[in-house]
Amino acid sequence: MSTLLLFSRSFFLASNGRRQLSNVGFIGLGNMGGHMAKNLIKKGYKLTVFDVNGAAVSSLVEAGANGASSAAEASKNADVVISMLPSNQHVLDCYFGEKGVLSSVKKDVLLVDSSTIDPSISEQVSTAAKKIGARFVDAPVSGGVNAASAATLTLMVGGSKTDFEDAERVLVAVGSRVIHCGKVGAGQATKLCNNMLLGISMIGTAEAFILGERLGLDPKILASVINTSSGRCWSSELYNPVPGVLDNAPSTNGYQGGFGTALMTKDLGLAQAAASRTETPSPLGSIAYQIYRTAMGHGHSKLDFSVVYQFLKGKQ
Amino acid sequence: MSTLLLFSRSFFLASNGRRQLSNVGFIGLGNMGGHMAKNLIKKGYKLTVFDVNGAAVSSLVEAGANGASSAAEASKNADVVISMLPSNQHVLDCYFGEKGVLSSVKKDVLLVDSSTIDPSISEQVSTAAKKIGARFVDAPVSGGVNAASAATLTLMVGGSKTDFEDAERVLVAVGSRVIHCGKVGAGQATKLCNNMLLGISMIGTAEAFILGERLGLDPKILASVINTSSGRCWSSELYNPVPGVLDNAPSTNGYQGGFGTALMTKDLGLAQAAASRTETPSPLGSIAYQIYRTAMGHGHSKLDFSVVYQFLKGKQ
Amino acid sequence: MSTLLLFSRSFFLASNGRRQLSNVGFIGLGNMGGHMAKNLIKKGYKLTVFDVNGAAVSSLVEAGANGASSAAEASKNADVVISMLPSNQHVLDCYFGEKGVLSSVKKDVLLVDSSTIDPSISEQVSTAAKKIGARFVDAPVSGGVNAASAATLTLMVGGSKTDFEDAERVLVAVGSRVIHCGKVGAGQATKLCNNMLLGISMIGTAEAFILGERLGLDPKILASVINTSSGRCWSSELYNPVPGVLDNAPSTNGYQGGFGTALMTKDLGLAQAAASRTETPSPLGSIAYQIYRTAMGHGHSKLDFSVVYQFLKGKQ
Amino acid sequence: MSTLLLFSRSFFLASNGRRQLSNVGFIGLGNMGGHMAKNLIKKGYKLTVFDVNGAAVSSLVEAGANGASSAAEASKNADVVISMLPSNQHVLDCYFGEKGVLSSVKKDVLLVDSSTIDPSISEQVSTAAKKIGARFVDAPVSGGVNAASAATLTLMVGGSKTDFEDAERVLVAVGSRVIHCGKVGAGQATKLCNNMLLGISMIGTAEAFILGERLGLDPKILASVINTSSGRCWSSELYNPVPGVLDNAPSTNGYQGGFGTALMTKDLGLAQAAASRTETPSPLGSIAYQIYRTAMGHGHSKLDFSVVYQFLKGKQ
Repeated sequence: MSTLLLFSRSFFLASNGRRQLSNVGFIGLGNMGGHMAKNLIKKGYKLTVFDVNGAAVSSLVEAGANGASSAAEASKNADVVISMLPSNQHVLDCYFGEKGVLSSVKKDVLLVDSSTIDPSISEQVSTAAKKIGARFVDAPVSGGVNAASAATLTLMVGGSKTDFEDAERVLVAVGSRVIHCGKVGAGQATKLCNNMLLGISMIGTAEAFILGERLGLDPKILASVINTSSGRCWSSELYNPVPGVLDNAPSTNGYQGGFGTALMTKDLGLAQAAASRTETPSPLGSIAYQIYRTAMGHGHSKLDFSVVYQFLKGKQ
Repeated sequence: MSTLLLFSRSFFLASNGRRQLSNVGFIGLGNMGGHMAKNLIKKGYKLTVFDVNGAAVSSLVEAGANGASSAAEASKNADVVISMLPSNQHVLDCYFGEKGVLSSVKKDVLLVDSSTIDPSISEQVSTAAKKIGARFVDAPVSGGVNAASAATLTLMVGGSKTDFEDAERVLVAVGSRVIHCGKVGAGQATKLCNNMLLGISMIGTAEAFILGERLGLDPKILASVINTSSGRCWSSELYNPVPGVLDNAPSTNGYQGGFGTALMTKDLGLAQAAASRTETPSPLGSIAYQIYRTAMGHGHSKLDFSVVYQFLKGKQ
Repeated sequence: MSTLLLFSRSFFLASNGRRQLSNVGFIGLGNMGGHMAKNLIKKGYKLTVFDVNGAAVSSLVEAGANGASSAAEASKNADVVISMLPSNQHVLDCYFGEKGVLSSVKKDVLLVDSSTIDPSISEQVSTAAKKIGARFVDAPVSGGVNAASAATLTLMVGGSKTDFEDAERVLVAVGSRVIHCGKVGAGQATKLCNNMLLGISMIGTAEAFILGERLGLDPKILASVINTSSGRCWSSELYNPVPGVLDNAPSTNGYQGGFGTALMTKDLGLAQAAASRTETPSPLGSIAYQIYRTAMGHGHSKLDFSVVYQFLKGKQ
Repeated sequence: MSTLLLFSRSFFLASNGRRQLSNVGFIGLGNMGGHMAKNLIKKGYKLTVFDVNGAAVSSLVEAGANGASSAAEASKNADVVISMLPSNQHVLDCYFGEKGVLSSVKKDVLLVDSSTIDPSISEQVSTAAKKIGARFVDAPVSGGVNAASAATLTLMVGGSKTDFEDAERVLVAVGSRVIHCGKVGAGQATKLCNNMLLGISMIGTAEAFILGERLGLDPKILASVINTSSGRCWSSELYNPVPGVLDNAPSTNGYQGGFGTALMTKDLGLAQAAASRTETPSPLGSIAYQIYRTAMGHGHSKLDFSVVYQFLKGKQ
């Protein structure tokens, strides 16, 4: 019986007295999730993985994971469950579905949702998790596919201090910055606020550079002034939408790679939904959303969102 | 006769073989121009000054300037004329009026207009100046009254390389950065592009932080994430519109001082006029202009433009 | 047994061979619903009513209705259930809640939801209703409190032809126009499209008249030209936002009465949510929404939405 | 001497005691002006015409006009001068140029400018005209090329009552409605306000119908409801942008004919310039302007402005 106790204790606590977090259920093996799962395996975590796409599961099994046939199965014996899914509805299905995460997890499991979704959904999952004794943090990421592959993502985490600290121990395997943003939902809220400002700044940058060119300015000189003045922003300095200003920006590479217009549009839509729900005015956020949405209708969905520069400039 | 020649030569060239630029006509002695004129006097320039406001002239005379009763008189014997005026129309009157600058200046004078105006007006003055053998650069400033007083303005200069270099020799007396942006008008164009992006970013920042607060985020934590992420911009990092985030931002001081909403609105209006003339789309620039304009109608004209945060947030 | 059959038959069909629709369950007795319920009683319908506000129920009981203590109880014996509720969530609770409509209704009941909500919620209720053999139409209204009181509402109905025809027989008791807009959800969709265009046109009218006044035009003369030209719209012609142009418009009466800014904002929010879900660009709809939202933050929530004229004009 | 007096009198007054207005100088023979000039000839006016395009002059000479080689020559002996020009600058050149109208006209001539321009330019021309004893009205038109050809234009006139009445006597030859809008500039102001509201309503209509279609509505049914409800506007009722809703709308004919996007964009630009000058907020007007501007960049300049429906909808 003491053996059992010992075993039971070691089940939750590693030898250094901390909770054991080595068994990870991972759900959602797309462009981002696939890389994150592989990085966890590389760092020694034992993964059980699920995706509706069987091929994605197979690929992870080859990399050393156990395959599961449902979210429930992937989560059953996990110390930590990480989900990386494309939308509110996918997250709801993943956690609340018949074979969903909440149907199978053990008490005290740490649930980490890295999807980018409405913060109110995070709160909803958290509330349900708490009822069955599970813990929840939202942990959306930024950095894109390259950062996912290189394990250099930024993770914005919402949850209690303890839950954040436990999540952090695992998430350093997939990212280089793990930030505690506040209570459950705060990770999502922070990401939406950041990306809304990014989406606005990028269009602002595009407009400023189009106007500058039409007025006869050299975009490189304009960039050098703006980047040392009050117009300075990440979009102008590190991700300039004018081809040729920065060698390694997507704009210089035909707007390939980077952060797709469809994804930016999705994030701005989430921000607007959150603004609506909280009765928050957001005129530029809303019109920025409409501009990316219209650009999508003109064939730019899969190109980097800085292609809004070309969309506004028109065909000449 | 050789004496005359020598004199004549020294009239234009200082002992080091460079043009003489010590006699400065200065027109426009308002909040900005007054400080600039005083800084030139401190650096040893001989100033002859004019302003429609006699008290402003008197104040400079006390500081060591000669007073003039018209722009023409202030410019008559000048090597350099500097103008700092509030609008397109003031600049047109100053240069083309009956007692205007162009009616009196000597050949080869260097005209420097530091007003913030439509670049097409700069081109118009330059063309007329060229016809009478005068040289012209536009050199709008950024930095506000404090930088004008401390001689730490940034000056964005448009003109030929030679004219820029001559202007630079004088303008270092009033600013810490003197940037060559391109041909005549390029200083104005650069300033308008920068300020349009600034005006947009500030509203974007305001919206992101209002949304963040409504979603329960601590603005200081949100700022710390945004300022190290892709939403980073000068408005968030160095001039945050949320009271209390930055100790020395106008927002923390009741939106006093800083860059008035009326001035930002003026600059955005100039940017929109330039966009209109060049058939350039500028949706966010145009709506940002409208937002500051509406905020002016609600009593915020004289407060720092970051007060747009309060305007959007409303009274609650 | 033949008696039972006869009874059973008469239970559904009136003597003229049509379905019996005389027993009405009515849920939601607010400003609009209260008047609608009273008008149904006046036309001879037998009402059983429920509202979370007991006083509202008492008022209808005085008018001749039976009171119920839950939506379920109000609906139990009804041939027709009509709901008039303020939001998506209220409708979901009313139909799906523990003591909700769907828990008690008899087979073949006709459910009529006159709330203004997201068309996707209407579809969700309809789908659930169908599973238990109930029929559903959405039937949002326009016309406001006065039209509700005078039984002159316009009702935009979505549902099958048969269900529409049955609903129409009842709804003529509360409105003067009952329009079949298409399948379930089409009533909501039509109302949202109409109100979005209304919300946009009103701001456009306000802007046109403010500009006209600033340019020295007499608003009555401007109205007479616009109302016979291509700028003509309901907002200019019948609901002009400039005080004094129309004697009976809310603008001439201090923006009292009419259609509150908060209600217009709500409808525009629903339109934007529907646009988002269907990936539809809607730049003017979105910025109109933001303008009314901002006007709410400045104290105009309860005034007629044409007060946006005053909000934009500012205090001068 | 009495003969001279008599002659002199008859020079100004026709036999009915009214001013003689039979000699018309006409400047600007483009799509619109050409038709207007021909209609004046048909009604018996004696025309002397000028255009920078010689072919346009020749065409009118064939129709019975005298050709002139400058604006001055066309105006020299005119009782009335009518100008129909494309932009502010053309009007300034036409009236103030070396061989411009004001250099040659006789005292008491009535100048009628039917160009659509900034009202402040109208005021400028009027002021200069008054100085030389000439009278001025602005009289921009609406109705397009077909109405110009059929002499069914609407003319919005700004000027004194007397000048309006004289202008009206002539203008009934080219239009079916001649409206006195107020003092000089009021014709332009009225047209800009109307067209701004039109430009906004059209985009609003486009958005409402795109959203309706995405939500499954039949556009004809949606139109029938909107056109009898509060969303009703000229764009929906008489010029619907959805192909097939109205048989004779440009949308049903490939957006051919009608009122070109470039012309709508020009008018919205004038409205925004006037709003800027008068410090008038105009958020929807400004964003509508940007949307048409962007649509121009995507190849829609020459199509009817209702093509904004297709631009927003995108390519699918």
